[in-house]
Amino acid sequence: MKTRKPLKSAMGWSTRDRITVRGHDLPSELLGKVDLGGMAFLEIRGRLPDAREAETFNAVLITLVEHGMTPQAIAARLVNLAAPEALQAAVAAGLCGVGSVFAGGSEQTAKMLQTAFDGPSDATPLPELAARIVDAFVAQRQPIPGIGHPLHKPIDPRTPVLFAIAERNGFRGRHIALLEQISDRAASRLQRELPINATGAIGAILSELDFPWRICRGIAVISRAVGLVGHLAEEMRNPVAREIWERAEEEVFETRDP
Amino acid sequence: MKTRKPLKSAMGWSTRDRITVRGHDLPSELLGKVDLGGMAFLEIRGRLPDAREAETFNAVLITLVEHGMTPQAIAARLVNLAAPEALQAAVAAGLCGVGSVFAGGSEQTAKMLQTAFDGPSDATPLPELAARIVDAFVAQRQPIPGIGHPLHKPIDPRTPVLFAIAERNGFRGRHIALLEQISDRAASRLQRELPINATGAIGAILSELDFPWRICRGIAVISRAVGLVGHLAEEMRNPVAREIWERAEEEVFETRDP
Amino acid sequence: MKTRKPLKSAMGWSTRDRITVRGHDLPSELLGKVDLGGMAFLEIRGRLPDAREAETFNAVLITLVEHGMTPQAIAARLVNLAAPEALQAAVAAGLCGVGSVFAGGSEQTAKMLQTAFDGPSDATPLPELAARIVDAFVAQRQPIPGIGHPLHKPIDPRTPVLFAIAERNGFRGRHIALLEQISDRAASRLQRELPINATGAIGAILSELDFPWRICRGIAVISRAVGLVGHLAEEMRNPVAREIWERAEEEVFETRDP
Amino acid sequence: MKTRKPLKSAMGWSTRDRITVRGHDLPSELLGKVDLGGMAFLEIRGRLPDAREAETFNAVLITLVEHGMTPQAIAARLVNLAAPEALQAAVAAGLCGVGSVFAGGSEQTAKMLQTAFDGPSDATPLPELAARIVDAFVAQRQPIPGIGHPLHKPIDPRTPVLFAIAERNGFRGRHIALLEQISDRAASRLQRELPINATGAIGAILSELDFPWRICRGIAVISRAVGLVGHLAEEMRNPVAREIWERAEEEVFETRDP
Repeated sequence: MKTRKPLKSAMGWSTRDRITVRGHDLPSELLGKVDLGGMAFLEIRGRLPDAREAETFNAVLITLVEHGMTPQAIAARLVNLAAPEALQAAVAAGLCGVGSVFAGGSEQTAKMLQTAFDGPSDATPLPELAARIVDAFVAQRQPIPGIGHPLHKPIDPRTPVLFAIAERNGFRGRHIALLEQISDRAASRLQRELPINATGAIGAILSELDFPWRICRGIAVISRAVGLVGHLAEEMRNPVAREIWERAEEEVFETRDP
Repeated sequence: MKTRKPLKSAMGWSTRDRITVRGHDLPSELLGKVDLGGMAFLEIRGRLPDAREAETFNAVLITLVEHGMTPQAIAARLVNLAAPEALQAAVAAGLCGVGSVFAGGSEQTAKMLQTAFDGPSDATPLPELAARIVDAFVAQRQPIPGIGHPLHKPIDPRTPVLFAIAERNGFRGRHIALLEQISDRAASRLQRELPINATGAIGAILSELDFPWRICRGIAVISRAVGLVGHLAEEMRNPVAREIWERAEEEVFETRDP
Repeated sequence: MKTRKPLKSAMGWSTRDRITVRGHDLPSELLGKVDLGGMAFLEIRGRLPDAREAETFNAVLITLVEHGMTPQAIAARLVNLAAPEALQAAVAAGLCGVGSVFAGGSEQTAKMLQTAFDGPSDATPLPELAARIVDAFVAQRQPIPGIGHPLHKPIDPRTPVLFAIAERNGFRGRHIALLEQISDRAASRLQRELPINATGAIGAILSELDFPWRICRGIAVISRAVGLVGHLAEEMRNPVAREIWERAEEEVFETRDP
Repeated sequence: MKTRKPLKSAMGWSTRDRITVRGHDLPSELLGKVDLGGMAFLEIRGRLPDAREAETFNAVLITLVEHGMTPQAIAARLVNLAAPEALQAAVAAGLCGVGSVFAGGSEQTAKMLQTAFDGPSDATPLPELAARIVDAFVAQRQPIPGIGHPLHKPIDPRTPVLFAIAERNGFRGRHIALLEQISDRAASRLQRELPINATGAIGAILSELDFPWRICRGIAVISRAVGLVGHLAEEMRNPVAREIWERAEEEVFETRDP
């Protein structure tokens, strides 16, 4: 049997009279003192946020909670219709859809921005860095993350508010500045308006807050978990899942090939 | 084709220049003004919390975020090991385990308390109500939800803090009082200490906050989503999943029948 | 540290040149010799089926594969729309809905039948056993599992075929006989036709095949996994998820309160 | 309201007296006549397999059912420990891990092989095609799918058996031949043994059977669903999840930082 690496974790532990979360005594140091956003910051970053981090991070978190009747929300409602005794499975089903299409934007933006500042490119002027990034995406015919929006035009109304919150809390730094340069460069290179969208803004702000890009999808997952529980609460009061299901089933029966 | 019920939802909607969540303009009325706990309250209850509701509800929400290396946390880490490109699926896998054993307590407590106050029993003195409830569970040889704890003895250290937060915010009402009576009655009937545990306290406080019992498991799901993302962030920095897996695989190989 | 129970499992193991599944060498003893239904039998029961078991069990397995545009199928398609890069998460989302409403029937029927033959009731004549069971469900105002169907009238066309397959393979035993008695008794007691439905037939046949009732939901899960992959394959060729989503989103926007 | 595309699906439908699956009457044409592997073929490909396709496809399907105590199996067992009332959620949790690391091999191999035969490369001699493919992967420093194995050396014992089954059924065609050329070319280019592994063989055989590469992960999902139900059945008889959990929890407590 090969020598085994010991298992270590700093998340938390309990004894008869103590419950410790990331080094803090839960009853005496956290309960009644920290909100859920602060707790998420503690869990992911390993320390409590200060007031400026807490305001900024909460703004990011609530942005992605609710987007109306999304595919994920409908999926969660349908699973709840089929297995009402397992609410957690309905939320899990909806969260399975927090993938590349609907929630990958902030992850991809954060990856693009954080990677740009890795290594020796640090001293490169931002417009030059932005031009390199835009040109690389265009050369590979890939969409540039974080800019443009199919619905919200000319701008995404969440972006200026999120950036203003970041700014008043001291988090309007180089990641946001680079994303603005990328948006400008892309607009002139591709000859159309490509304003920063909300997921782009979130990717940039999370980068300012020192969140590694690999965990950014997790922020979206937390937000959507809140939203999906909201949808299930509405489904209990005013169900729509059965109607959506029966209409689809009826229609594919009506349009079936003979 | 039968006449169809129109689909209605009050969760939210978007147009070119507006994003509305439960009747509030997201950029101007919510961003920077509401924390994630308040947003969860808005999503589930349909209105924003006042300051006292927000403090009480946030305390409930953060209580269940982190319990160390739980089965759900290990499951999420193992799924992340196997499918690192789909972080949302790892969280979903862990949430699938927020079921009867580890998170059903608050749901069952809230159901017991809310059902007790349904209908004509309203005027029954609490000790009598508590006695009836305890006797019914004992007669059916079923565990009474919300009381007793395998580890935390003589009391669950979270309970008095949660009740103090509820009290200072004006939410120490009849649901909490009834649960205290149930705890007393059960202790004398079963001749052992059965103090109110944290999930019991949460079920009682959510009942004071007018959350229907059917959605209480959803509160636990929100909290654990935060905790699971925290575990995945630690797994990225300091992985344990591969070690847990390899040890188990190696051991079942060593102990196999010839 | 308390003494630890060794981990044991008989499912399978691998070495450099061998892959063993439940005691069989996979390449030489199973590949090309066992079909997927037989493999499922081996996995769950620990031994290969004989030809009669294989035919009967495969008939059960294929019965539940496909039911058209069910809530689970729509949920899987919607999750695939949102996260097309994680096909496994779309199937998982749909499977989350294989719960009490749409797949609990066979589990509940098997539980009812297997429990009836536990203990000293063995010698009770079947009509008496059936009467007791029906009377107990009626007294508790609970639906009797395995009988009646909202759509298939006067009979579920799958039931006589499944029972004929069981009979020709020697599996028409006391569990099926008891379910027939329950169906008769319920019909006379409740004064309406309550023929055995497909999930009831499956619960009875799985009981004849000595499958514990607690694993019966797993049989439905296997079948629906096959069906959901079928739906996702069709979704790739001829998508409907976007249409279902956009219609729902548009309609809740149109019907929103001002 | 914009004009809507009608929803169409050929999967199946039901009326009072009929249940149709992909054009076949389930009771009279499928039950007792088709095994689960054949049903999977029907669901995905839209027609029943002939005997040669059925044998080959069943061999592929059973190959991936069982790999012992994998991360997915442990995850499913842990979720079952936490939510034993929702067996479907435990299977779903395990399936969430059928991702790039443990099940992406057949998908990537099929993509590589099918893409190679798209378009005008049809007439290119296989060794040249193989050289181009290997050189492209090496140039991008990416692993070549379908070849090499960390454990099974010098060969994966499943591969020759799978290819023999394909051959005796008439499915040893150009996709298998190209993969063999790729394996040879990679070995000489990288100067080490890189034999075709089982997921590579499966990707090649599914390509011979005309399965689009995008659905290949779904085949793995079906197989693992069977295996995970097997693990849960064993967990009910001989549980290990609690032991795995308690050991991990205890160890991270012992190794915690002061």
